[in-house]
Amino acid sequence: MSEALTDLKTRLSTVRDLTSSAAVLDWDQETYMPEGGTEARARQSATLQRLAHEMFTSDETAGLLETVEPVTDLDADLLRVARRDLDRERRIPSGLVAELALATGRARDAWRHARDADDYPAFEPHLARIVDLCIRKAEAVGFRDSPYDALVDEYEPDMTTARIAEVFGELKTELVPLVETLAGASDPAGAAMLHGPFPPGAQWDFGMQVLKDIGFDFERGRQDRSAHPFTTTFSISDVRLTTRIHPDHFSPGFFGSLHEAGHGLYEQGVDPDLEGTLLADGTSLGMHESQSRLWENQVGRSRPFWERYLPRLRTAFPDRFAPVEIDPFLRALNQVRRSPIRIEADELTYNLHIMVRFEMERDLIEGRLAVRDVPRAWNDRMEEALGIRPESDAEGCLQDIHWSTGILGYFPTYALGNLMSAQIWRALRCDVPDLDDRIRQGEFGPMLDWLRTQVHRHGRRRSADRILRDTTGHGLGSGDWLAYVRTKYGGLFGVNLDGPAT
Amino acid sequence: MSEALTDLKTRLSTVRDLTSSAAVLDWDQETYMPEGGTEARARQSATLQRLAHEMFTSDETAGLLETVEPVTDLDADLLRVARRDLDRERRIPSGLVAELALATGRARDAWRHARDADDYPAFEPHLARIVDLCIRKAEAVGFRDSPYDALVDEYEPDMTTARIAEVFGELKTELVPLVETLAGASDPAGAAMLHGPFPPGAQWDFGMQVLKDIGFDFERGRQDRSAHPFTTTFSISDVRLTTRIHPDHFSPGFFGSLHEAGHGLYEQGVDPDLEGTLLADGTSLGMHESQSRLWENQVGRSRPFWERYLPRLRTAFPDRFAPVEIDPFLRALNQVRRSPIRIEADELTYNLHIMVRFEMERDLIEGRLAVRDVPRAWNDRMEEALGIRPESDAEGCLQDIHWSTGILGYFPTYALGNLMSAQIWRALRCDVPDLDDRIRQGEFGPMLDWLRTQVHRHGRRRSADRILRDTTGHGLGSGDWLAYVRTKYGGLFGVNLDGPAT
Repeated sequence: MSEALTDLKTRLSTVRDLTSSAAVLDWDQETYMPEGGTEARARQSATLQRLAHEMFTSDETAGLLETVEPVTDLDADLLRVARRDLDRERRIPSGLVAELALATGRARDAWRHARDADDYPAFEPHLARIVDLCIRKAEAVGFRDSPYDALVDEYEPDMTTARIAEVFGELKTELVPLVETLAGASDPAGAAMLHGPFPPGAQWDFGMQVLKDIGFDFERGRQDRSAHPFTTTFSISDVRLTTRIHPDHFSPGFFGSLHEAGHGLYEQGVDPDLEGTLLADGTSLGMHESQSRLWENQVGRSRPFWERYLPRLRTAFPDRFAPVEIDPFLRALNQVRRSPIRIEADELTYNLHIMVRFEMERDLIEGRLAVRDVPRAWNDRMEEALGIRPESDAEGCLQDIHWSTGILGYFPTYALGNLMSAQIWRALRCDVPDLDDRIRQGEFGPMLDWLRTQVHRHGRRRSADRILRDTTGHGLGSGDWLAYVRTKYGGLFGVNLDGPAT
Repeated sequence: MSEALTDLKTRLSTVRDLTSSAAVLDWDQETYMPEGGTEARARQSATLQRLAHEMFTSDETAGLLETVEPVTDLDADLLRVARRDLDRERRIPSGLVAELALATGRARDAWRHARDADDYPAFEPHLARIVDLCIRKAEAVGFRDSPYDALVDEYEPDMTTARIAEVFGELKTELVPLVETLAGASDPAGAAMLHGPFPPGAQWDFGMQVLKDIGFDFERGRQDRSAHPFTTTFSISDVRLTTRIHPDHFSPGFFGSLHEAGHGLYEQGVDPDLEGTLLADGTSLGMHESQSRLWENQVGRSRPFWERYLPRLRTAFPDRFAPVEIDPFLRALNQVRRSPIRIEADELTYNLHIMVRFEMERDLIEGRLAVRDVPRAWNDRMEEALGIRPESDAEGCLQDIHWSTGILGYFPTYALGNLMSAQIWRALRCDVPDLDDRIRQGEFGPMLDWLRTQVHRHGRRRSADRILRDTTGHGLGSGDWLAYVRTKYGGLFGVNLDGPAT
C-alpha cells in the first residue's frame, strides 16, 4: 500500500473517530445528561464537529484524495464515497458547521421545553436561526433547481425535490381514497385495548425480549430511554437504540423499539471489514428507514408475528390482553386513524404526515413560508392531507425533534423508506417462501440473513438504487407498497381495495 | 484583549473540549457501553487524547504562551498553569500518548476479566506494557532523583518520592501501634450488622437522599453505577458520580457514594468564571481526596451525622437497623479491621493500604520489581504492613482499576488527602464552632459554603500548599490527622490512645 494511501486512511480514520465521539456526546445528551450540562455540551459537540470538518476538508486530505490510487476494490469504493462527501463538505465553511452545531445544541433543549409547555414562540427564534443556517448551507453546497435539493442530497444521495414531489404526488392520488375507505372501515373502539395502563417495566421487558429474538445483538449494542426514540452508532459493535415508553399506551414504546431495532440491525450487519471507515453506514436514510419499517410494519404488525407473540403478550399483561383474540388485536394494531401525531400514525396515514413535513420544509427553505407562520401553515396542511387540525402546537409543529437538531431535508426519507421496504419485502418473500411459517415459529434468522446479504453488509459500498435494482429488479416506485397495503388492509377489514387496473 | 491572547484562549478551549469529550467516552465505557464497543472505543479515546495533546503542545500554542501578556489576574493564573502543563506535556511525544491510550483502553476490560476470574497472568502483559510506557513517560518528562517523581508530579504538583517516603515513614511509626491497639479493641461481631442482604434499590435511594441533603446539585450532575466508583467532570455544571452497590454489604455503596460526592462537590464548586479553562479542576489530587474524605469520614462516620440519619436508616432498612442503637452502630462503622480490600478499609488501615501501593509502584518504576513478581511482592508487603496475606489476586493486586487505566503515581495522593482532610477539618471547626449541631440538624450549608470559599472556588488558581497554609496556617503534616483519629477512636472504643508527648 502506498504511503499516501496509508496517510489518507489514517486521516479518514481520525475524522471518523471525531464524528463517532460526537455521536457519543449527543447520545449522552439525549439519554442521561443533566440539564446543567447543556451549554458546555453544545460547545464540546461543536468543537468535535468543527475539527472533523476541518480535517476532512483540509487541503491535505483533498490533495491525497485527488492523487492516490486504490489497491483493492474496497479502497476504490472508499475513495469514491470519500470524494463524494468531500466535494459536498468542502463547499461548507467550517464556521457555518460550528454555528449549526452551537445553534442545534441550544435548540434541542429549547425545543423540549417549548414542546412540554406548548410554547411555539419560545422555539421560534431557534428554528429561525436553524432555517437561516440551512439556507446558507444549501447556498454553499449549490443546487440546480431548489435549495432544498442540496439538503435532501445529504440524506438521500441523488434524490431531488422534483422527484420527491412526483413520487409523493402519485402516491397521494391513490392514498387519500384508501385512507378515506379504511378510516371508515376500522373500529376505533377496538383500538382502545392498546390504551390504558401498561406498567412501563413490563413494556420494557417484553420489548427487550422481542429485540433479542429478532437478532439484535446486546453484546454489541444496548437500548436506553429518551424523549424521542433514535438509533446511533459508535462502531458496528456498539449500536445504541433508544425508546420512549408511554405508561398509558402500548404501541409507541413497542413499535418504536422494533423500528429502532430495524435501524440497529442494519448498522450491526455491516461487513466488519468496513469498521472505522466512512463506508460503515447505511447507504441512504431511505434505505435505512426501509429496514426499520420492515421490522416495525411488515413483520411487527403482521398476523404470523402475533401468532407467535400474542400468547406471550397475554402473559406479560394478563389484565389487558388475556381475553383478546388475534383478529380484533390485529385490527387494533392496524387501525387507520387520522391522528395529529406522526409517531403514532398507522402505516397508511404516516406517508401523509411526511408529505406535510416535506412541503413545510421545502417552502421554508425556498423562502415561501415565514418561520412565524409555521404553526398556521402546519395546521392548514394537516387539515388538507388528513382532514384534522391539531389542537395545540405541542401536537402540531412542535412534536418532532428533527428541526431542533438541524436536519431539514430528512423527513422525506421516511416515506421513501416505506416504499423501499415494500419492494424489499416482496423480494424477500420470493427468496424465502416459508417466511410466514418461520416468523410464526419465532425464527427470524432466515430473514435477517437475507437482509444482511442483500442490504446490510454492503454499507455505503452500494447505492440505494443499486441495492434496489439488484434485489428487486427495478428502481424506486410506489407499486409494491400500494399492492402490499391493499392486500393486507383489504383482508384485515374485509374491504375491497382493488386499485386501478394497470 | 490582544488578538494573541484571544487566539491562545480559543486554542486552550478547544483542547479542553477534546479532553472533556474523552471524559464522556470514558464515563460511557465504565457505565453503559456494551462489551463489543471496547476496541473502537479505545481507538476513539486515543484519537481525542492525541489531538488534544498535539494541539496543546504545538509550536503555535507554545509560541503564543511565550509571548502573550495577561490582562487580568485570571489571565495571569491561566498562563502560569498552562505554561506548567505545557512544559510537562511538550516533553511527552504524541506517539507515546496514543500508545498509552490504546494500551489502557484494552487493559481496562482485560483487568475486569482478570479480576473476575482471579487470573493475574491474563492481566500481566497489559500491566507490563503500561509500566513500560510509564517508565518511558517518566524518562521523557525528566526527573532529578527517581523516575517515579515524574509520575507523581502529574497528580500532586511539586511532591516528590522522597518527601512521600518521609511523611509515610513518620506516619507508619505512629499508625502501626494504633492499629494494633484498635484491631484488638474493636468488635468484629458488631460489624456484622452492616453485612447481609440490603436491597440495592433501598441502598440507592438512601444514598441519593443524603447526596441531595449535603448539597450535591443533581441539576448539574448525576450518579450512575460502575464496577469501580469514580467521579468525572464534563463541565462545572455536569459532574458525574458513580457508585457500586453490594447487595450484601451496606458500607461500600453508601460510603463510596459519599466519597465520590465529596469529589463532585469540589468540581461543582469551582468559580463559574473558570468554566471551560484548565483552571476548572481540583488543584491537586491530594486536595481533591481531602474533600472526598471529609464527607466520607469526618462527616459520614461521625456521631452528629448519624444522630440525624440513623432514624432514616432504620426506616429504609427496618429489618436490619430498627433495633440498632447509635453507639454500637458507630463502632461498627468505625471498626478497625485488617482487610485485604482497600475500598473496604477503615480510616486507619487505609493509609497502610496506600503505603503498600506506593512502594509497589515506586519499585516497578525504578526497575527494582518485575511485573511477573507483582502478586508475590504485593502479598508480602500486605503481610508486613497489615499482618494479613490476601487469599487470591482478585482481592490482592487485581482489586484496583487504577493500573489498568495507566495512572501510576496516583495512589499516594489518597493518603496525602487523608492528612489534608484532617488539617482542613480542624480549621473548619474553628470557623464554624456549632458545626456538630448543624450536622445534627441536617444543615450542611455552612460547611459547604466554607469549603467553597476556602477551597473549591479557587480551582487550580491556588496550589494545594497555598490553600493549606491560608486555611490552616501550616503546610502538609500528619499531626492533625493523628490527633483526630486518637480523639475519635479513643472515645468510641474507650481506649487511651495518647500519642508521644510532643
